[in-house]
Amino acid sequence: MKRTTGALRIALLGHGTVGAETARALTGRGAELAARIGAPVELAGIALSRPRTLPGIDSSLITTDAQALVSRGDIDVVVELIGGVEPARSLVVAAMEAGASVVTANKALIASEGVDLHRIARKQGVGLAYEAAVAGAVPVLRPLRQSLAGDRLRRVTGIVNGTTNFILDRMTGAGGTFQGALHEAQRLGYAEADPTADVCGADAAAKMAIVARLAFDTELPFDDVHFEGITHIGPGDIAHAEANGCVIKLVGICDRTPDGVNARVHPMMIPRDHPLAGVRDADNGILVEAEAAGELMFHGAGAGGLATSSAVLGDLVELCRDRVAGTGQAPADFSQVLPVIPVAQVAARYHVSMFVTDEPGVLSQVSAVFAEHGVSLETVRQEGLGAEAELALVTHRATDAAVTEVLARLRSHPSTRGVIRSIRLLDSRKGPAS
Amino acid sequence: MKRTTGALRIALLGHGTVGAETARALTGRGAELAARIGAPVELAGIALSRPRTLPGIDSSLITTDAQALVSRGDIDVVVELIGGVEPARSLVVAAMEAGASVVTANKALIASEGVDLHRIARKQGVGLAYEAAVAGAVPVLRPLRQSLAGDRLRRVTGIVNGTTNFILDRMTGAGGTFQGALHEAQRLGYAEADPTADVCGADAAAKMAIVARLAFDTELPFDDVHFEGITHIGPGDIAHAEANGCVIKLVGICDRTPDGVNARVHPMMIPRDHPLAGVRDADNGILVEAEAAGELMFHGAGAGGLATSSAVLGDLVELCRDRVAGTGQAPADFSQVLPVIPVAQVAARYHVSMFVTDEPGVLSQVSAVFAEHGVSLETVRQEGLGAEAELALVTHRATDAAVTEVLARLRSHPSTRGVIRSIRLLDSRKGPAS
Ligand SMILES: NC(=O)c1ccc[n+]([C@@H]2O[C@H](COP(=O)([O-])OP(=O)(O)OC[C@H]3O[C@@H](n4cnc5c(N)ncnc54)[C@H](OP(=O)(O)O)[C@@H]3O)[C@@H](O)[C@H]2O)c1
Ligand SMILES: NC(=O)c1ccc[n+]([C@@H]2O[C@H](COP(=O)([O-])OP(=O)(O)OC[C@H]3O[C@@H](n4cnc5c(N)ncnc54)[C@H](OP(=O)(O)O)[C@@H]3O)[C@@H](O)[C@H]2O)c1
Repeated sequence: MKRTTGALRIALLGHGTVGAETARALTGRGAELAARIGAPVELAGIALSRPRTLPGIDSSLITTDAQALVSRGDIDVVVELIGGVEPARSLVVAAMEAGASVVTANKALIASEGVDLHRIARKQGVGLAYEAAVAGAVPVLRPLRQSLAGDRLRRVTGIVNGTTNFILDRMTGAGGTFQGALHEAQRLGYAEADPTADVCGADAAAKMAIVARLAFDTELPFDDVHFEGITHIGPGDIAHAEANGCVIKLVGICDRTPDGVNARVHPMMIPRDHPLAGVRDADNGILVEAEAAGELMFHGAGAGGLATSSAVLGDLVELCRDRVAGTGQAPADFSQVLPVIPVAQVAARYHVSMFVTDEPGVLSQVSAVFAEHGVSLETVRQEGLGAEAELALVTHRATDAAVTEVLARLRSHPSTRGVIRSIRLLDSRKGPAS
Repeated sequence: MKRTTGALRIALLGHGTVGAETARALTGRGAELAARIGAPVELAGIALSRPRTLPGIDSSLITTDAQALVSRGDIDVVVELIGGVEPARSLVVAAMEAGASVVTANKALIASEGVDLHRIARKQGVGLAYEAAVAGAVPVLRPLRQSLAGDRLRRVTGIVNGTTNFILDRMTGAGGTFQGALHEAQRLGYAEADPTADVCGADAAAKMAIVARLAFDTELPFDDVHFEGITHIGPGDIAHAEANGCVIKLVGICDRTPDGVNARVHPMMIPRDHPLAGVRDADNGILVEAEAAGELMFHGAGAGGLATSSAVLGDLVELCRDRVAGTGQAPADFSQVLPVIPVAQVAARYHVSMFVTDEPGVLSQVSAVFAEHGVSLETVRQEGLGAEAELALVTHRATDAAVTEVLARLRSHPSTRGVIRSIRLLDSRKGPAS
């Protein structure tokens, strides 16, 4: 890495929720940051999409030509806070090709282009950091990549989307429907006007792709991360969870077995005594299981402009320190390409609920369908409701493929009435917070 | 920093609880570590106090002359796992003077000599890392120093001594005396044969000195950390805590105000809904409060050979990476010397309990003593026991100095019967885990 002497020049792309807080810190707390870095920092430019003035910012620093700003050649660190894949990707690449290190909070960009961007950073001898892209202010990526670099990671289980956690927490605490809780989340600023990426699980999946790569030191295509959302979760599911001593949360899991790695996102029933069950409101929580370290839990605010700017500035200070120190070629970031285990082969315990005609023999017929596909049952609960009965079954560990086949068969079973609901169960465990 | 090409040579000082696990990883997982580092690692020597063979280790690597090993001049990283200040200090200094980077898990050494050792490391252009010295496997120091480097830290509150947490947790859950719980801790390997450093608070104080320096980017002498232990805590205190909806834990706090910094360790009553109350058994938990990031909680195993080796190896991988990359002079580690606020001026709410003669006017006399020293009372509970009554009082926030004076006055008060007990209260808060 090029060694910088004198002031470090920072270019900011975007002045939105996160960008405005980052700019405020750069202009208001310059001396503190300089002390931490060991050299002065200077805001060299801010790119916006629409020309306008910004309070407290010299208007000569403002530009709508982000491409020209990142290509100037005298920028030390470009902080990308625009979001989305393009034009963020092109701008970040141009910045690195012009010799700048890059900080970004952009999970969509890193999830889809991260492996390539790491290669370019390495080739150019510049830094690339994105702690803010996962769990906002909660330090997760640096602990995985650095603190646990000498350990063997087994699994990371995380609540990494604050919007869905808020919605499910409200449905659990105050009752009500998904739509009602979503509207409350929007009213309070926890959900965007278009909440699709959050509620369909894609945002959490992007984060889990990033986590899995760093946890297992492997390339992992974003397309290989399976995700399911929470839009189908209703008060009935919440009630079933309650009956099982559980809460429902949108959970991201990545794990490593001798056969390979898998990363996935889906709602799960979590036992109330599990450390992740205590992650309330829009918080994020990450449970890391490592061979030597055991179980580690990280917990805090996963979003918000101010909190996210903390992670952005932490990365900025580190990349600036590296430029002051001047480092050579960093080692490769992903040293292997582990096989990805398809979600169909991933096993879990499932909770299945369905309405059936209340007549003798139904339970044994339904159980037989499970047995035929090699899925054994842990508990069965039946509640008669006149002509219909509701069955609530919990399976032993079974693969996604097997349970999917069972559900397909049950849907066409003559005794089945209405929709069959299924949700995975997270195993209870001691956990550091038990 | 000198740039190393080819294999990195590691010298291990000590092969005890942590050293043996570290050696096992270095010999058994060399290929993995090499992939993470970007270069092969080689165990170049192990120093012991008594000559003997070690299973799986070439006997030519074993020496009792640690001084000669660290001074060889071809060692890249010295891993100090002996413990105590000397000879660890001399060995670490000799290692750095010979051009080696240093990893240590030694909180006693870093607490008392850390500022000097940082200076020597900087002068020699070598690395110095000690994540394992605080909270074992739980990443705390790197998040403070790196992830939160762009934020303003306000306070760190931690349970950083597993032995005392285990003892107090047992006294709370199973009842019984301090001595009984200590013996159980010793039997289960959670307390050493000589538990003095743990139960008197000195071990936690060493860790809080280290935490405070990194959190507030300031030099802080270990002698300025006030500490109190838990040997005086009895079933009566546990019962008072219970009556207040609290548990008692040994807590380390460091905070920063406009006037300076303070670090201290003492037992406290913690409300049951506080995130730190959920830190059970011998676990460690750290709650970080930062201006931008808000409240962050880190939780996991704070000790044990295997867990601690995870942190040691993480540091080792990082310092090896730095040597492969070859870095220039790092910026100073502590850029300021903030004034230390004496504990006498630190304010807290206090729980005070005492036996008094049960006669009219006693309560008003006792209250008057508090009032005379400017300490106002939040709640007063009185329970008659025949000739004596027990008073349990909770104060509003008052300085240590004021409460100390109140207690001295009450001790010589004619109505006082026996010992007066006092303990600080940690304020209830939302907290990320509420
Ligand atoms: N918000 C959070 O809590 C949070 C948390 C974690 C991560 N993140 C990530 O942080 C990034 C920024 O999020 P945000 O919430 O701050 O977004 P935002 O509020 O929508 O702000 C985006 C900014 O980018 C600017 N911009 C858009 N297109 C541009 C272009 N072509 N050239 C230059 N500037 C352009 C916009 O300019 P105008 O002001 O002119 O429109 C705006 O200032 C995203 O990657 C997001 O995923 C956000
Ligand atoms: N144990 C934990 O859970 C834990 C957790 C966090 C941090 N730590 C820290 O880790 C460090 C090591 O702790 P530990 O529990 O592993 O200690 P330990 O079991 O007592 O082992 C100490 C080792 O150092 C060796 N040694 C002593 N004096 C020596 C000398 N002059 N030259 C060379 N070797 C010498 C001993 O050699 P012999 O084998 O020949 O006696 C022994 O192998 C301490 O700083 C401790 O505070 C420990």
